[in-house]
Amino acid sequence: MIEEKENIQFELTDELVAQVEHLVETRNDEELKSLLEDFHHADIAEILDELDLDDSVYVIKLLDSETTADILIEMDEDNREKVLRNLSAKEIAEEIEELDTDDAADIIAELPEERQAEVISNIEDKEHRKEITELLAYDEDTAGGLMAKELVKVYETWTVAGCLRRIRVQAKDVTRVHSIYVVDKKNKLIGRLSLKDLIVAKAEHKIADIYIKTVDYVHVDDDAEDVARIMQKYDLEAIPVVDSNQKLLGRITIDDIVDVIREEADRDYQMAAGISQGVEADDSILKLTRARLPWLLIGMFGGLGAASIIEYFNGEMGDFIVLLSFVPLIQATAGNVGVQSSAIIVQGLANDSLDGKIFKRLLKEALLGLVNGLAIACIALVITHFLFGTPYIVSITVGIALISVIVMAAMIGTFIPIFLDKRGIDPAVATGPFITTSNDVFGILIYFVIAKLILQF
Amino acid sequence: MIEEKENIQFELTDELVAQVEHLVETRNDEELKSLLEDFHHADIAEILDELDLDDSVYVIKLLDSETTADILIEMDEDNREKVLRNLSAKEIAEEIEELDTDDAADIIAELPEERQAEVISNIEDKEHRKEITELLAYDEDTAGGLMAKELVKVYETWTVAGCLRRIRVQAKDVTRVHSIYVVDKKNKLIGRLSLKDLIVAKAEHKIADIYIKTVDYVHVDDDAEDVARIMQKYDLEAIPVVDSNQKLLGRITIDDIVDVIREEADRDYQMAAGISQGVEADDSILKLTRARLPWLLIGMFGGLGAASIIEYFNGEMGDFIVLLSFVPLIQATAGNVGVQSSAIIVQGLANDSLDGKIFKRLLKEALLGLVNGLAIACIALVITHFLFGTPYIVSITVGIALISVIVMAAMIGTFIPIFLDKRGIDPAVATGPFITTSNDVFGILIYFVIAKLILQF
Repeated sequence: MIEEKENIQFELTDELVAQVEHLVETRNDEELKSLLEDFHHADIAEILDELDLDDSVYVIKLLDSETTADILIEMDEDNREKVLRNLSAKEIAEEIEELDTDDAADIIAELPEERQAEVISNIEDKEHRKEITELLAYDEDTAGGLMAKELVKVYETWTVAGCLRRIRVQAKDVTRVHSIYVVDKKNKLIGRLSLKDLIVAKAEHKIADIYIKTVDYVHVDDDAEDVARIMQKYDLEAIPVVDSNQKLLGRITIDDIVDVIREEADRDYQMAAGISQGVEADDSILKLTRARLPWLLIGMFGGLGAASIIEYFNGEMGDFIVLLSFVPLIQATAGNVGVQSSAIIVQGLANDSLDGKIFKRLLKEALLGLVNGLAIACIALVITHFLFGTPYIVSITVGIALISVIVMAAMIGTFIPIFLDKRGIDPAVATGPFITTSNDVFGILIYFVIAKLILQF
Repeated sequence: MIEEKENIQFELTDELVAQVEHLVETRNDEELKSLLEDFHHADIAEILDELDLDDSVYVIKLLDSETTADILIEMDEDNREKVLRNLSAKEIAEEIEELDTDDAADIIAELPEERQAEVISNIEDKEHRKEITELLAYDEDTAGGLMAKELVKVYETWTVAGCLRRIRVQAKDVTRVHSIYVVDKKNKLIGRLSLKDLIVAKAEHKIADIYIKTVDYVHVDDDAEDVARIMQKYDLEAIPVVDSNQKLLGRITIDDIVDVIREEADRDYQMAAGISQGVEADDSILKLTRARLPWLLIGMFGGLGAASIIEYFNGEMGDFIVLLSFVPLIQATAGNVGVQSSAIIVQGLANDSLDGKIFKRLLKEALLGLVNGLAIACIALVITHFLFGTPYIVSITVGIALISVIVMAAMIGTFIPIFLDKRGIDPAVATGPFITTSNDVFGILIYFVIAKLILQF
């Protein structure tokens, strides 16, 4: 008999939100508690994200800190920040006590600096306080920023029986055990064990006899995205973190890595679409404008650059004014090819699956551009000449310009991200409006230069 | 003392590849084996991906099937397919014997149909053969296509001691235990237990007394991406899969879900960039052309559409020929705004974080467009009039057109993905060249219509 409690078919309906709002308004605490009791904390977080600030603060204060700590972790960051502003330092500290060190440090890091110290001083559990303070010192984009202090470790000198006894104590603080780390007496990481190995082993065995001496680990300063790549590549569900002396500091679990992967993918996607990182559809118009306007300005300057180029050639072309009709075709093609080329390179760099020399890759892109360009040019030539009645020589000009523009756009789209990556700059910035704009301008310039050469105006 | 074996600092160097090639050529089997022994199977797969087909087949045949099965799983799909074509059905079956059922089924599913039956009939382990055949029946994009048959399950009537005894046997086949599933005598899933709970419990307790009655599960026909969302939302590391009668069929682990998330993100990214799914930078020019040309053709037809519009107005505009210079500006802006709006909606839909009514969202986008449009229009007006010396009335026309085009592009970019999603079509197709092209054409049309109205030509 499966209870409803963690039913995965949870659906956030307007009725449910209205029901919660009504219970809050009428201060019907008992019924509210018993209603929310039936939901998973991630679901309650979704409900609270829909409520007014006052209402969600009310609900947070009503429920046990054991539940609300988990709810806060799952809430939208902006909403959580607002809720926390309405809680006292002592109330926040109570929530923090319930959280694992990594989540606790994440929440504290979001607070204004003066509140951080106040909240930390209100944490009663000394050990927890010390561990959180340690974690706060690490950059959030490093292994140290991802790791939790909660882990199960054993000394190589222990027996299996003694080990199981002590693990029973340690494991109470650890949500999921994954691996058991084996350390020497100086706390240096020397190997690992799985709970399974321990259960299968005989009680009187020494850990030193049964532990596995190969263990993957990362350094506390390693980049978070590198940690994600390592855990994915080697299919790890947890990885220990050590300092420069190989001392065991913490561990990172796969669920945190899933978030890193998702965030990285989201950020690259937004960059490619010309949106500065970290906005959501539900953010305010001001925040969305801040994220979108800079990229539109880049596009605008590109457009004005193109206007100057056209102006320049406009006076000269005389009878060939029809050339101007094909500017959008040239521009769209240059932009599309540039985005395609850069996206495939950025993705290859992100997945670490790109190999070979830059020259070989440019040659390949040029060839690819030639193939695509020939196809597009032929079709465009036939349509413009036979369907639109464009003069033969103009159609030829457009065709040759298309081929040149495609090859050029493909090469720019390939070169820029590789170049940025080699310089240590995130290649994803070179996608989207950035590449489209530069290709637009170059494309139009090439078009008119070719036209001038062929048509001799 | 950490051994080098699973050193995470593995780097694929040209020297290493050359060394392996040399050992293969000289048939120096012993040294080759002892060299590769030191690497993780995921690293060996990377090396093999760099070798010629003959060389990688040679290495695969040289090593034990225990290692090579894992290597094959990690290899690039195209390369793996080629290697498998060079192995006999019996050799493939030997690899399959070493793999978990989910990986085994994935590999068999890649084979041509006539070989599938041949390979399956060569699998000696009857149970394994039966389980793999069952898994092959499920669509790869469903929970059934992701799940493995390997899991640890216990009956509610067992005692803790008996349970531990039997788990020792079951667990040998299971790489990672995660959860222990509790079933009734009809194999219906009724709850779960963690290894930790079992270790902490007293030996004489009955499972029925200690198991947790709430358990998340998915149905075998559920969509793979939905399973990924559920596991992420509820931070699950494994989830059981049941049939319509609640019978336990298998389980899905988080490492498979990481792949689903990554693939989904990659696909959306490629769609936004105008590349059909599933290509990599290292694919052949033919494959890359097939993935890229269709989108370029869409862009080309858009460009030709724009050319017709310009042709139509060209004859009429007389003195206002300068309007044509600003076509690229209008087009770039329309394209950029459209991509921004659609990307943010597609991402919201993918993360399931989009709420509210379609009308409210369109209104918001219109407002946002107005804010961005006013900013862009003012700057463009100042630059064109004072810097370029464009006539005042033309600059005003361009400014008004920019505002209108931005608002329109934002609304189209918002509406189309939501509309597609409601129709059950993947909204990601509406990003990239698709949205850019339609916005280009509409944008240019709006521009000339507004110009005609204001300038009265």
